[in-house]
Amino acid sequence: MIIDIHGHYTTEPQAVHLFRDKQLAGLADPARRPTSTDLGISDEALVKSVEPQLKFQKERGSDLTIFSPRASGMAHHVGTEAVSQQWTTISNDLIHRICTLLPDNFVGVGQLPQHPGAPIKNCIPELERIVNELGFVGVNVNPDPSGGHWSGPPITDKYWYPIYEKLCELQAPAMIHVSSSCNPNFHATGAHYINGDTTAFMQLIQGNLFKDFPTLKFVIPHGGGAVPFHWGRYRGLCQDMKKPPLAEYLLGNVFFDTCVYHLPGIELLTKVIPTDNVLFASEMVGAVKGIDPQTGHYYDDTKRYIDQVKALGEADRYKIFEGNARRVYPRLDALLTKRGHPGKKA
Amino acid sequence: MIIDIHGHYTTEPQAVHLFRDKQLAGLADPARRPTSTDLGISDEALVKSVEPQLKFQKERGSDLTIFSPRASGMAHHVGTEAVSQQWTTISNDLIHRICTLLPDNFVGVGQLPQHPGAPIKNCIPELERIVNELGFVGVNVNPDPSGGHWSGPPITDKYWYPIYEKLCELQAPAMIHVSSSCNPNFHATGAHYINGDTTAFMQLIQGNLFKDFPTLKFVIPHGGGAVPFHWGRYRGLCQDMKKPPLAEYLLGNVFFDTCVYHLPGIELLTKVIPTDNVLFASEMVGAVKGIDPQTGHYYDDTKRYIDQVKALGEADRYKIFEGNARRVYPRLDALLTKRGHPGKKA
Repeated sequence: MIIDIHGHYTTEPQAVHLFRDKQLAGLADPARRPTSTDLGISDEALVKSVEPQLKFQKERGSDLTIFSPRASGMAHHVGTEAVSQQWTTISNDLIHRICTLLPDNFVGVGQLPQHPGAPIKNCIPELERIVNELGFVGVNVNPDPSGGHWSGPPITDKYWYPIYEKLCELQAPAMIHVSSSCNPNFHATGAHYINGDTTAFMQLIQGNLFKDFPTLKFVIPHGGGAVPFHWGRYRGLCQDMKKPPLAEYLLGNVFFDTCVYHLPGIELLTKVIPTDNVLFASEMVGAVKGIDPQTGHYYDDTKRYIDQVKALGEADRYKIFEGNARRVYPRLDALLTKRGHPGKKA
Repeated sequence: MIIDIHGHYTTEPQAVHLFRDKQLAGLADPARRPTSTDLGISDEALVKSVEPQLKFQKERGSDLTIFSPRASGMAHHVGTEAVSQQWTTISNDLIHRICTLLPDNFVGVGQLPQHPGAPIKNCIPELERIVNELGFVGVNVNPDPSGGHWSGPPITDKYWYPIYEKLCELQAPAMIHVSSSCNPNFHATGAHYINGDTTAFMQLIQGNLFKDFPTLKFVIPHGGGAVPFHWGRYRGLCQDMKKPPLAEYLLGNVFFDTCVYHLPGIELLTKVIPTDNVLFASEMVGAVKGIDPQTGHYYDDTKRYIDQVKALGEADRYKIFEGNARRVYPRLDALLTKRGHPGKKA
């Protein structure tokens, strides 16, 4: 089974955007608020909206996508905490409906109703709802709910501890994924996303978070930002800071996905990062939509790159495509086992 | 000749720090202001202070370091514009003295008296002074003088144009290098530096700066941040944005150094980025000070990595170690030629 652990719902029906417009217009003029949270989207329309993803799964040879709301759509910095809560509920419910309609293709991961300055514990009810009621297997945590101003505390700060406690209790990993940027310095997918990944990893080196949460698991998307390319720098900084060796210090808890859109990048990632810490992902349909004229294939068809890495043996490929995902997302493993896909011993 | 294009003066005598303390103490209590900008450092003390660099040059086999003030020391966000100006003059003068004392080992690059919100044209007199009077061959430009708040405009904004005009006129390249971070989210050398590199490059994709400044040259340090690792992403984003192919669009003006502290990173950099755009650098004595237990050599001994990249031929090595530096820094080339080192035809 080929599990793509990183897909966002980037092909929402227009009704979703119309609702969001009304919701935000309502901040300025309460008369424009949406009158209902029922978006009026039929099951047929939902299934139709994910046809691009289904087509790519089939063409590229992946089976199951861990599916979450559009990352840039979370926009925790926009509006109020109440707006974030309403928007989060609606966004997560849409994911749930798609996963229910197409259970062989999609398993859900949710967003949280974060808001700059609001206590993170306010996100716990939604986290419990999506995991316990909607069957989601993980959650996206935004390390910068200010949207590119980075005005909140680092992810190792005690501010975040209530959500980490709940994640450990629920056996749910978090993908550390920023949302859109309202800072003109940071292009969303070209700078803010990658910087968010790099920044989060360095915060984990500085802090000692997994001493307090030994079972907490973080997935750092986009191949870990700049981290694998600068693995020597991070090993060296860790050493200068008198921490344990980097791999020993963090790689029991931190994992990287394969959203790196060219072969040399995937080669580096799989050479530098232990196979146990690399999870297949493409973020399709996502950040980069085009076809690479150098290969004739989509940039984000990352499976092709992994298939070309000669140094990976069969056992490595099993881990990257399935085994690691089942280990990092225990609720996914349980779900698949229950459905008659027990997986192999890693 | 082996030219290391990226070294900062990180081994300043204590008198420099004492002056800076007094200078900043003077903000709170004018009575504590330093009474003189003469730091009382003898030539002997200056030469002694760079013994570590001289030792590393000898041991590692580099000849000449392009030497600039400590990057994190620029701290443009601290104090006032007048403080930044005084501190910049002193910092650049120290570099000038070292380059005068040890002309075979060091050639100068300066910092600018930037300050958040202050017009960039206020930096022009110092830029002219360091190039025309002190013989510096380039300058460090801080794309985020706010120190991790990124509250200023992107580097493609017209705000910056006066300094670019002067750089073109002077035939001086700029290294785009942030300073220290006063944002607790960003570790200086582990996050802010790398993010600064990535951010600047993405801004250049978004804008069209080199249409207005076809001869302007930027060096992006630390191997270009995350850029080479995500070269497919950047090529794809460029394509999605209907820009010319990335290499054609930016690589006539943008260059990367080799401050990447492990062999797989250097292999990726030299595989993905055309040889004409890679300049040897180590940033010694800098961000990472230790010895890599996996190799028994210093992490920042980057020459060793380049020496190990089998795919590079002699012509490539000449470009990376000398030729590209002479092309990107024409004033360096002129200086070396005048001193009897004409270089090879690239």
